[in-house]
Amino acid sequence: MVEELLANLGIRLPAPAAPVASYIPVRLSGDQAFVSGQIPMEEGKVLSTGKVGAEVSIEQGQEAARRCALQALAVLRQELGSLDRVKGIVKVDVFVASAPGFGDQPKVANGASDLLVEIFGEDGKHARAAVGVAELPLGASVEVALIARVAGGRG
Amino acid sequence: MVEELLANLGIRLPAPAAPVASYIPVRLSGDQAFVSGQIPMEEGKVLSTGKVGAEVSIEQGQEAARRCALQALAVLRQELGSLDRVKGIVKVDVFVASAPGFGDQPKVANGASDLLVEIFGEDGKHARAAVGVAELPLGASVEVALIARVAGGRG
Amino acid sequence: MVEELLANLGIRLPAPAAPVASYIPVRLSGDQAFVSGQIPMEEGKVLSTGKVGAEVSIEQGQEAARRCALQALAVLRQELGSLDRVKGIVKVDVFVASAPGFGDQPKVANGASDLLVEIFGEDGKHARAAVGVAELPLGASVEVALIARVAGGRG
Repeated sequence: MVEELLANLGIRLPAPAAPVASYIPVRLSGDQAFVSGQIPMEEGKVLSTGKVGAEVSIEQGQEAARRCALQALAVLRQELGSLDRVKGIVKVDVFVASAPGFGDQPKVANGASDLLVEIFGEDGKHARAAVGVAELPLGASVEVALIARVAGGRG
Repeated sequence: MVEELLANLGIRLPAPAAPVASYIPVRLSGDQAFVSGQIPMEEGKVLSTGKVGAEVSIEQGQEAARRCALQALAVLRQELGSLDRVKGIVKVDVFVASAPGFGDQPKVANGASDLLVEIFGEDGKHARAAVGVAELPLGASVEVALIARVAGGRG
Repeated sequence: MVEELLANLGIRLPAPAAPVASYIPVRLSGDQAFVSGQIPMEEGKVLSTGKVGAEVSIEQGQEAARRCALQALAVLRQELGSLDRVKGIVKVDVFVASAPGFGDQPKVANGASDLLVEIFGEDGKHARAAVGVAELPLGASVEVALIARVAGGRG
Protein backbone atom coordinates (compact mmCIF):
# COMPACT_ATOMS: atom_id res chain seq x y z
CA MET A 1 0.00 0.00 0.00
CA VAL A 2 1.10 3.50 -0.71
CA GLU A 3 1.13 4.73 2.87
CA GLU A 4 3.35 1.81 3.90
CA LEU A 5 5.62 2.40 0.92
CA LEU A 6 6.02 6.06 1.84
CA ALA A 7 7.12 5.03 5.29
CA ASN A 8 9.54 2.45 3.87
CA LEU A 9 10.99 4.98 1.45
CA GLY A 10 11.41 7.40 4.32
CA ILE A 11 9.40 10.01 2.45
CA ARG A 12 7.59 12.40 4.76
CA LEU A 13 4.95 14.58 3.21
CA PRO A 14 5.01 18.26 4.08
CA ALA A 15 2.19 19.75 6.15
CA PRO A 16 -0.67 20.50 3.74
CA ALA A 17 -0.99 24.20 3.10
CA ALA A 18 -4.11 25.79 4.52
CA PRO A 19 -6.81 26.50 1.94
CA VAL A 20 -6.85 30.11 0.88
CA ALA A 21 -9.67 32.16 -0.55
CA SER A 22 -12.33 30.66 -2.77
CA TYR A 23 -10.37 27.87 -4.28
CA ILE A 24 -9.53 24.67 -2.48
CA PRO A 25 -6.54 22.33 -2.62
CA VAL A 26 -8.45 19.32 -3.96
CA ARG A 27 -11.76 18.98 -5.79
CA LEU A 28 -13.32 15.57 -6.37
CA SER A 29 -15.32 14.97 -9.52
CA GLY A 30 -16.52 11.41 -9.88
CA ASP A 31 -13.41 9.30 -9.47
CA GLN A 32 -11.06 12.10 -10.45
CA ALA A 33 -9.38 14.32 -7.90
CA PHE A 34 -8.17 17.67 -9.22
CA VAL A 35 -5.28 19.09 -7.23
CA SER A 36 -4.70 22.84 -7.38
CA GLY A 37 -1.44 24.22 -8.67
CA GLN A 38 1.27 23.82 -6.04
CA ILE A 39 4.32 26.07 -5.71
CA PRO A 40 7.18 24.88 -3.51
CA MET A 41 6.48 26.19 -0.02
CA GLU A 42 7.73 25.68 3.49
CA GLU A 43 6.27 27.36 6.54
CA GLY A 44 4.58 29.98 4.43
CA LYS A 45 7.66 30.85 2.40
CA VAL A 46 8.44 30.00 -1.21
CA LEU A 47 11.36 27.55 -1.26
CA SER A 48 12.55 28.26 -4.79
CA THR A 49 12.17 31.55 -6.64
CA GLY A 50 13.51 32.84 -9.91
CA LYS A 51 13.82 31.57 -13.46
CA VAL A 52 15.14 28.16 -14.31
CA GLY A 53 17.98 28.60 -16.77
CA ALA A 54 19.13 31.75 -14.98
CA GLU A 55 19.30 31.97 -11.16
CA VAL A 56 17.76 28.50 -10.73
CA SER A 57 19.62 25.43 -12.05
CA ILE A 58 17.91 22.46 -13.66
CA GLU A 59 18.69 20.41 -10.56
CA GLN A 60 17.16 23.04 -8.31
CA GLY A 61 14.13 23.17 -10.58
CA GLN A 62 13.77 19.39 -10.35
CA GLU A 63 13.95 19.60 -6.58
CA ALA A 64 11.26 22.29 -6.63
CA ALA A 65 9.05 20.17 -8.91
CA ARG A 66 9.50 17.19 -6.60
CA ARG A 67 8.51 19.34 -3.65
CA CYS A 68 5.38 20.49 -5.48
CA ALA A 69 4.45 16.85 -6.13
CA LEU A 70 4.94 16.01 -2.46
CA GLN A 71 2.67 18.89 -1.52
CA ALA A 72 0.09 17.63 -4.00
CA LEU A 73 0.16 14.26 -2.25
CA ALA A 74 -0.08 15.97 1.12
CA VAL A 75 -3.32 17.73 0.19
CA LEU A 76 -4.65 14.58 -1.46
CA ARG A 77 -4.01 12.62 1.74
CA GLN A 78 -5.71 15.34 3.74
CA GLU A 79 -8.76 15.19 1.47
CA LEU A 80 -8.96 11.41 1.15
CA GLY A 81 -7.84 10.36 4.61
CA SER A 82 -5.22 8.04 3.12
CA LEU A 83 -3.17 7.90 -0.07
CA ASP A 84 -4.17 4.24 -0.31
CA ARG A 85 -7.34 5.54 -1.94
CA VAL A 86 -5.30 6.94 -4.84
CA LYS A 87 -5.60 4.51 -7.75
CA GLY A 88 -3.25 6.33 -10.07
CA ILE A 89 -2.02 9.62 -11.44
CA VAL A 90 -3.76 10.71 -14.64
CA LYS A 91 -2.33 14.03 -15.76
CA VAL A 92 0.37 16.34 -14.50
CA ASP A 93 0.76 19.94 -15.63
CA VAL A 94 4.16 21.47 -14.93
CA PHE A 95 4.71 25.19 -15.38
CA VAL A 96 8.35 26.23 -15.27
CA ALA A 97 9.30 29.91 -14.85
CA SER A 98 11.84 30.00 -17.66
CA ALA A 99 14.74 32.25 -18.54
CA PRO A 100 14.87 33.34 -22.20
CA GLY A 101 16.11 30.46 -24.34
CA PHE A 102 15.59 27.80 -21.67
CA GLY A 103 14.16 24.62 -23.19
CA ASP A 104 14.69 21.89 -20.61
CA GLN A 105 11.24 22.06 -19.02
CA PRO A 106 10.85 18.26 -19.41
CA LYS A 107 13.95 17.65 -17.29
CA VAL A 108 12.60 19.95 -14.60
CA ALA A 109 9.20 18.26 -14.75
CA ASN A 110 10.83 14.88 -14.21
CA GLY A 111 11.38 15.95 -10.63
CA ALA A 112 7.63 15.60 -10.15
CA SER A 113 7.05 12.68 -12.50
CA ASP A 114 9.81 10.50 -11.10
CA LEU A 115 8.55 10.96 -7.56
CA LEU A 116 5.02 9.96 -8.54
CA VAL A 117 6.25 6.80 -10.25
CA GLU A 118 8.55 6.04 -7.34
CA ILE A 119 5.52 6.07 -5.08
CA PHE A 120 2.72 4.68 -7.24
CA GLY A 121 4.66 2.47 -9.67
CA GLU A 122 2.89 1.71 -12.96
CA ASP A 123 -0.28 3.42 -11.68
CA GLY A 124 1.77 6.56 -11.19
CA LYS A 125 2.62 6.85 -14.89
CA HIS A 126 0.75 9.82 -16.25
CA ALA A 127 0.16 12.08 -19.21
CA ARG A 128 2.00 15.35 -18.84
CA ALA A 129 2.34 18.81 -20.26
CA ALA A 130 5.43 20.86 -19.40
CA VAL A 131 5.67 24.46 -20.55
CA GLY A 132 7.80 27.48 -19.80
CA VAL A 133 5.95 30.48 -18.44
CA ALA A 134 6.83 34.10 -17.86
CA GLU A 135 6.02 34.43 -14.16
CA LEU A 136 4.59 32.30 -11.38
CA PRO A 137 2.84 33.22 -8.13
CA LEU A 138 5.15 34.81 -5.56
CA GLY A 139 8.06 34.48 -7.96
CA ALA A 140 8.12 30.67 -7.66
CA SER A 141 10.30 28.73 -10.09
CA VAL A 142 7.87 25.86 -10.64
CA GLU A 143 4.15 25.14 -10.31
CA VAL A 144 2.60 21.67 -10.54
CA ALA A 145 -1.10 20.78 -10.84
CA LEU A 146 -2.40 17.25 -11.27
CA ILE A 147 -5.36 14.93 -11.65
CA ALA A 148 -5.45 11.66 -9.73
CA ARG A 149 -7.85 8.73 -9.90
CA VAL A 150 -9.37 7.82 -6.59
CA ALA A 151 -11.46 5.01 -5.20
CA GLY A 152 -14.70 5.88 -3.52
CA GLY A 153 -14.92 9.31 -5.14
CA ARG A 154 -18.15 11.21 -4.88
CA GLY A 155 -20.22 12.97 -7.49
CA MET B 1 -31.55 27.71 -7.50
CA VAL B 2 -28.72 29.37 -9.29
CA GLU B 3 -30.82 31.20 -11.86
CA GLU B 4 -32.95 32.71 -9.09
CA LEU B 5 -29.85 33.64 -7.13
CA LEU B 6 -28.34 35.39 -10.13
CA ALA B 7 -31.48 37.46 -10.42
CA ASN B 8 -31.44 38.23 -6.69
CA LEU B 9 -27.79 39.23 -6.83
CA GLY B 10 -28.54 41.45 -9.78
CA ILE B 11 -25.89 39.67 -11.83
CA ARG B 12 -26.62 39.75 -15.54
CA LEU B 13 -24.58 37.43 -17.69
CA PRO B 14 -23.08 38.89 -20.85
CA ALA B 15 -24.33 37.70 -24.23
CA PRO B 16 -22.49 34.45 -25.01
CA ALA B 17 -19.84 34.95 -27.65
CA ALA B 18 -20.58 33.28 -30.97
CA PRO B 19 -18.60 30.10 -31.55
CA VAL B 20 -15.65 30.65 -33.82
CA ALA B 21 -13.85 28.21 -36.03
CA SER B 22 -13.46 24.56 -35.13
CA TYR B 23 -13.57 24.85 -31.41
CA ILE B 24 -16.72 25.40 -29.43
CA PRO B 25 -17.46 27.28 -26.22
CA VAL B 26 -18.53 24.22 -24.20
CA ARG B 27 -17.87 20.50 -24.63
CA LEU B 28 -19.71 17.96 -22.51
CA SER B 29 -17.94 14.76 -21.54
CA GLY B 30 -19.98 12.56 -19.25
CA ASP B 31 -20.99 14.84 -16.41
CA GLN B 32 -18.14 17.26 -16.96
CA ALA B 33 -18.54 20.41 -19.04
CA PHE B 34 -15.31 21.85 -20.39
CA VAL B 35 -15.52 25.58 -21.05
CA SER B 36 -13.09 27.07 -23.54
CA GLY B 37 -10.67 29.78 -22.48
CA GLN B 38 -12.48 33.10 -22.12
CA ILE B 39 -10.89 36.49 -22.56
CA PRO B 40 -12.81 39.55 -21.34
CA MET B 41 -14.91 40.73 -24.28
CA GLU B 42 -17.76 43.12 -24.92
CA GLU B 43 -19.42 43.57 -28.28
CA GLY B 44 -16.52 42.00 -30.10
CA LYS B 45 -13.86 44.08 -28.37
CA VAL B 46 -11.38 43.03 -25.69
CA LEU B 47 -12.27 44.83 -22.46
CA SER B 48 -8.85 44.63 -20.82
CA THR B 49 -5.52 44.47 -22.63
CA GLY B 50 -1.93 44.67 -21.47
CA LYS B 51 0.15 43.13 -18.73
CA VAL B 52 -0.96 42.95 -15.14
CA GLY B 53 1.73 44.55 -13.02
CA ALA B 54 2.40 47.17 -15.69
CA GLU B 55 -0.44 48.95 -17.53
CA VAL B 56 -3.10 46.80 -15.84
CA SER B 57 -3.54 46.99 -12.04
CA ILE B 58 -4.33 44.02 -9.84
CA GLU B 59 -7.85 45.39 -9.36
CA GLN B 60 -8.35 45.71 -13.10
CA GLY B 61 -7.02 42.20 -13.57
CA GLN B 62 -9.49 40.92 -10.97
CA GLU B 63 -12.31 42.65 -12.78
CA ALA B 64 -11.16 41.08 -16.05
CA ALA B 65 -11.01 37.64 -14.42
CA ARG B 66 -14.50 38.12 -13.03
CA ARG B 67 -15.73 39.08 -16.48
CA CYS B 68 -14.18 35.93 -17.95
CA ALA B 69 -15.98 33.83 -15.35
CA LEU B 70 -19.28 35.53 -16.18
CA GLN B 71 -18.71 34.75 -19.83
CA ALA B 72 -17.96 31.15 -18.95
CA LEU B 73 -21.31 30.97 -17.16
CA ALA B 74 -23.02 32.61 -20.12
CA VAL B 75 -21.81 29.93 -22.53
CA LEU B 76 -22.62 27.20 -20.00
CA ARG B 77 -26.17 28.50 -19.71
CA GLN B 78 -26.44 28.61 -23.48
CA GLU B 79 -25.28 25.01 -23.74
CA LEU B 80 -27.32 23.64 -20.83
CA GLY B 81 -30.47 25.72 -21.08
CA SER B 82 -30.18 26.73 -17.43
CA LEU B 83 -27.40 27.16 -14.91
CA ASP B 84 -29.55 25.17 -12.50
CA ARG B 85 -28.06 22.11 -14.21
CA VAL B 86 -24.59 23.09 -12.97
CA LYS B 87 -23.80 20.97 -9.94
CA GLY B 88 -20.47 22.56 -9.15
CA ILE B 89 -17.22 24.00 -10.42
CA VAL B 90 -14.37 21.48 -10.57
CA LYS B 91 -11.28 23.21 -11.92
CA VAL B 92 -10.42 26.73 -12.98
CA ASP B 93 -7.34 27.62 -15.01
CA VAL B 94 -6.37 31.29 -14.90
CA PHE B 95 -3.73 32.64 -17.25
CA VAL B 96 -2.55 36.14 -16.39
CA ALA B 97 -0.54 38.17 -18.92
CA SER B 98 2.18 39.25 -16.51
CA ALA B 99 4.73 42.03 -16.46
CA PRO B 100 8.27 40.97 -15.53
CA GLY B 101 8.47 40.34 -11.80
CA PHE B 102 4.70 40.24 -11.26
CA GLY B 103 3.77 37.47 -8.83
CA ASP B 104 0.23 38.23 -7.71
CA GLN B 105 -1.55 35.92 -10.16
CA PRO B 106 -3.54 34.35 -7.29
CA LYS B 107 -5.03 37.74 -6.36
CA VAL B 108 -6.02 38.31 -9.98
CA ALA B 109 -7.51 34.83 -10.22
CA ASN B 110 -9.64 35.51 -7.14
CA GLY B 111 -11.74 37.75 -9.36
CA ALA B 112 -12.99 34.59 -11.06
CA SER B 113 -12.96 32.30 -8.03
CA ASP B 114 -14.85 34.65 -5.76
CA LEU B 115 -17.60 35.14 -8.32
CA LEU B 116 -18.04 31.39 -8.75
CA VAL B 117 -18.35 30.86 -5.02
CA GLU B 118 -20.68 33.84 -4.70
CA ILE B 119 -22.99 32.13 -7.18
CA PHE B 120 -22.61 28.43 -6.43
CA GLY B 121 -21.67 28.49 -2.75
CA GLU B 122 -19.83 25.41 -1.47
CA ASP B 123 -20.38 23.66 -4.81
CA GLY B 124 -18.54 26.51 -6.47
CA LYS B 125 -15.31 25.84 -4.59
CA HIS B 126 -12.81 24.49 -7.09
CA ALA B 127 -9.27 23.40 -7.68
CA ARG B 128 -7.29 26.08 -9.48
CA ALA B 129 -4.07 26.78 -11.29
CA ALA B 130 -3.01 30.39 -11.78
CA VAL B 131 0.07 31.15 -13.86
CA GLY B 132 1.66 34.16 -15.50
CA VAL B 133 2.02 33.96 -19.27
CA ALA B 134 3.87 35.99 -21.86
CA GLU B 135 1.01 36.89 -24.18
CA LEU B 136 -2.70 36.18 -24.52
CA PRO B 137 -5.03 36.25 -27.53
CA LEU B 138 -5.70 39.76 -28.85
CA GLY B 139 -3.49 41.20 -26.15
CA ALA B 140 -5.95 40.30 -23.38
CA SER B 141 -4.79 40.66 -19.78
CA VAL B 142 -6.50 37.49 -18.48
CA GLU B 143 -7.85 34.21 -19.81
CA VAL B 144 -9.99 31.78 -17.80
CA ALA B 145 -10.93 28.20 -18.72
CA LEU B 146 -12.92 25.90 -16.45
CA ILE B 147 -14.52 22.52 -15.90
CA ALA B 148 -17.98 22.30 -14.34
CA ARG B 149 -19.99 19.31 -13.18
CA VAL B 150 -23.41 19.10 -14.72
CA ALA B 151 -26.54 17.06 -14.21
CA GLY B 152 -27.91 15.18 -17.16
CA GLY B 153 -24.65 15.29 -19.09
CA ARG B 154 -24.32 13.17 -22.20
CA GLY B 155 -21.60 10.77 -23.25
CA MET C 1 -14.89 5.08 -39.65
CA VAL C 2 -11.98 7.27 -38.74
CA GLU C 3 -9.27 4.92 -39.91
CA GLU C 4 -10.92 4.62 -43.32
CA LEU C 5 -11.38 8.36 -43.51
CA LEU C 6 -7.71 8.97 -42.73
CA ALA C 7 -6.81 6.70 -45.62
CA ASN C 8 -9.28 8.46 -47.91
CA LEU C 9 -7.94 11.86 -46.91
CA GLY C 10 -4.43 10.62 -47.58
CA ILE C 11 -3.40 11.61 -44.05
CA ARG C 12 -0.58 9.47 -42.71
CA LEU C 13 0.12 9.72 -39.03
CA PRO C 14 3.72 10.14 -37.97
CA ALA C 15 5.47 7.33 -36.10
CA PRO C 16 4.49 7.68 -32.44
CA ALA C 17 7.34 9.02 -30.38
CA ALA C 18 8.83 6.56 -27.92
CA PRO C 19 7.76 7.09 -24.32
CA VAL C 20 10.38 8.92 -22.32
CA ALA C 21 11.00 8.90 -18.61
CA SER C 22 8.19 8.62 -16.09
CA TYR C 23 5.41 10.13 -18.09
CA ILE C 24 3.62 8.35 -20.88
CA PRO C 25 2.08 9.55 -24.14
CA VAL C 26 -1.51 8.59 -23.24
CA ARG C 27 -3.26 7.92 -19.93
CA LEU C 28 -6.75 6.47 -19.85
CA SER C 29 -9.10 7.51 -17.04
CA GLY C 30 -12.57 6.05 -17.39
CA ASP C 31 -13.63 6.99 -20.90
CA GLN C 32 -11.25 9.91 -21.16
CA ALA C 33 -7.84 9.59 -22.74
CA PHE C 34 -5.34 12.26 -21.70
CA VAL C 35 -2.66 12.86 -24.32
CA SER C 36 0.62 14.38 -23.18
CA GLY C 37 1.81 17.68 -24.58
CA GLN C 38 3.17 17.19 -28.10
CA ILE C 39 5.81 19.36 -29.72
CA PRO C 40 6.32 19.04 -33.47
CA MET C 41 8.96 16.36 -34.00
CA GLU C 42 10.36 14.30 -36.83
CA GLU C 43 12.96 11.61 -36.38
CA GLY C 44 13.96 12.95 -33.01
CA LYS C 45 14.32 16.56 -34.14
CA VAL C 46 12.05 19.50 -33.44
CA LEU C 47 10.42 20.57 -36.72
CA SER C 48 9.61 24.15 -35.74
CA THR C 49 11.54 26.24 -33.24
CA GLY C 50 11.38 29.90 -32.25
CA LYS C 51 8.69 32.38 -31.38
CA VAL C 52 5.56 32.84 -33.41
CA GLY C 53 5.31 36.49 -34.34
CA ALA C 54 9.07 36.71 -34.79
CA GLU C 55 11.07 33.98 -36.59
CA VAL C 56 7.99 31.78 -37.00
CA SER C 57 5.05 33.01 -39.10
CA ILE C 58 1.42 32.36 -38.23
CA GLU C 59 1.21 29.90 -41.13
CA GLN C 60 4.26 28.04 -39.88
CA GLY C 61 2.78 28.02 -36.39
CA GLN C 62 -0.45 26.55 -37.76
CA GLU C 63 1.50 23.86 -39.56
CA ALA C 64 3.35 23.08 -36.32
CA ALA C 65 0.05 22.89 -34.40
CA ARG C 66 -1.38 20.56 -37.04
CA ARG C 67 1.69 18.37 -36.73
CA CYS C 68 1.26 18.24 -32.95
CA ALA C 69 -2.35 17.14 -33.40
CA LEU C 70 -1.29 14.41 -35.83
CA GLN C 71 1.24 13.18 -33.30
CA ALA C 72 -1.46 13.18 -30.63
CA LEU C 73 -3.56 10.95 -32.87
CA ALA C 74 -0.56 8.73 -33.54
CA VAL C 75 -0.03 8.03 -29.86
CA LEU C 76 -3.78 7.60 -29.33
CA ARG C 77 -3.86 4.99 -32.11
CA GLN C 78 -0.90 3.26 -30.56
CA GLU C 79 -2.61 3.14 -27.18
CA LEU C 80 -6.07 2.17 -28.43
CA GLY C 81 -5.19 -0.08 -31.34
CA SER C 82 -7.40 1.96 -33.67
CA LEU C 83 -8.66 5.52 -33.85
CA ASP C 84 -12.11 4.06 -34.46
CA ARG C 85 -12.31 3.80 -30.68
CA VAL C 86 -12.09 7.60 -30.38
CA LYS C 87 -15.60 8.94 -29.81
CA GLY C 88 -14.67 12.58 -29.84
CA ILE C 89 -12.24 15.28 -28.83
CA VAL C 90 -13.12 16.99 -25.54
CA LYS C 91 -10.48 19.61 -24.78
CA VAL C 92 -7.41 20.92 -26.55
CA ASP C 93 -4.73 23.02 -24.85
CA VAL C 94 -2.49 24.94 -27.22
CA PHE C 95 0.64 26.65 -25.93
CA VAL C 96 2.23 29.03 -28.42
CA ALA C 97 5.78 30.31 -27.87
CA SER C 98 5.01 33.95 -28.53
CA ALA C 99 7.07 36.97 -29.47
CA PRO C 100 6.35 40.12 -27.46
CA GLY C 101 3.08 41.66 -28.61
CA PHE C 102 1.91 38.58 -30.52
CA GLY C 103 -1.82 37.98 -29.99
CA ASP C 104 -2.88 35.56 -32.73
CA GLN C 105 -2.61 32.38 -30.68
CA PRO C 106 -6.16 31.36 -31.74
CA LYS C 107 -5.15 31.40 -35.42
CA VAL C 108 -2.15 29.24 -34.65
CA ALA C 109 -4.28 26.86 -32.60
CA ASN C 110 -6.68 26.47 -35.51
CA GLY C 111 -3.98 24.38 -37.17
CA ALA C 112 -4.73 21.70 -34.58
CA SER C 113 -8.47 22.32 -34.22
CA ASP C 114 -9.21 22.26 -37.94
CA LEU C 115 -7.38 18.97 -38.40
CA LEU C 116 -9.34 17.35 -35.56
CA VAL C 117 -12.66 18.45 -37.04
CA GLU C 118 -11.56 17.39 -40.52
CA ILE C 119 -11.03 13.91 -39.16
CA PHE C 120 -13.72 13.50 -36.52
CA GLY C 121 -16.43 15.86 -37.85
CA GLU C 122 -18.92 17.09 -35.23
CA ASP C 123 -17.44 14.75 -32.63
CA GLY C 124 -14.11 16.47 -33.16
CA LYS C 125 -15.41 19.85 -32.03
CA HIS C 126 -13.80 20.62 -28.70
CA ALA C 127 -13.35 23.14 -25.94
CA ARG C 128 -10.00 24.87 -26.22
CA ALA C 129 -7.58 27.13 -24.42
CA ALA C 130 -4.87 28.88 -26.42
CA VAL C 131 -2.24 30.91 -24.61
CA GLY C 132 1.11 32.47 -25.39
CA VAL C 133 4.02 31.20 -23.34
CA ALA C 134 7.59 32.30 -22.82
CA GLU C 135 9.44 29.13 -23.75
CA LEU C 136 8.63 25.58 -24.77
CA PRO C 137 10.62 22.34 -24.52
CA LEU C 138 13.62 22.22 -26.87
CA GLY C 139 12.72 25.66 -28.19
CA ALA C 140 9.57 24.38 -29.93
CA SER C 141 7.15 26.96 -31.32
CA VAL C 142 3.97 25.12 -30.33
CA GLU C 143 2.84 22.47 -27.85
CA VAL C 144 -0.56 20.75 -27.94
CA ALA C 145 -2.13 18.54 -25.25
CA LEU C 146 -5.62 17.09 -25.48
CA ILE C 147 -8.34 14.97 -23.92
CA ALA C 148 -10.30 12.54 -26.09
CA ARG C 149 -13.34 10.43 -25.31
CA VAL C 150 -12.86 6.78 -26.02
CA ALA C 151 -15.02 3.68 -26.16
CA GLY C 152 -14.07 0.75 -23.99
CA GLY C 153 -11.91 2.80 -21.67
CA ARG C 154 -10.66 1.24 -18.49
CA GLY C 155 -10.73 2.47 -14.92
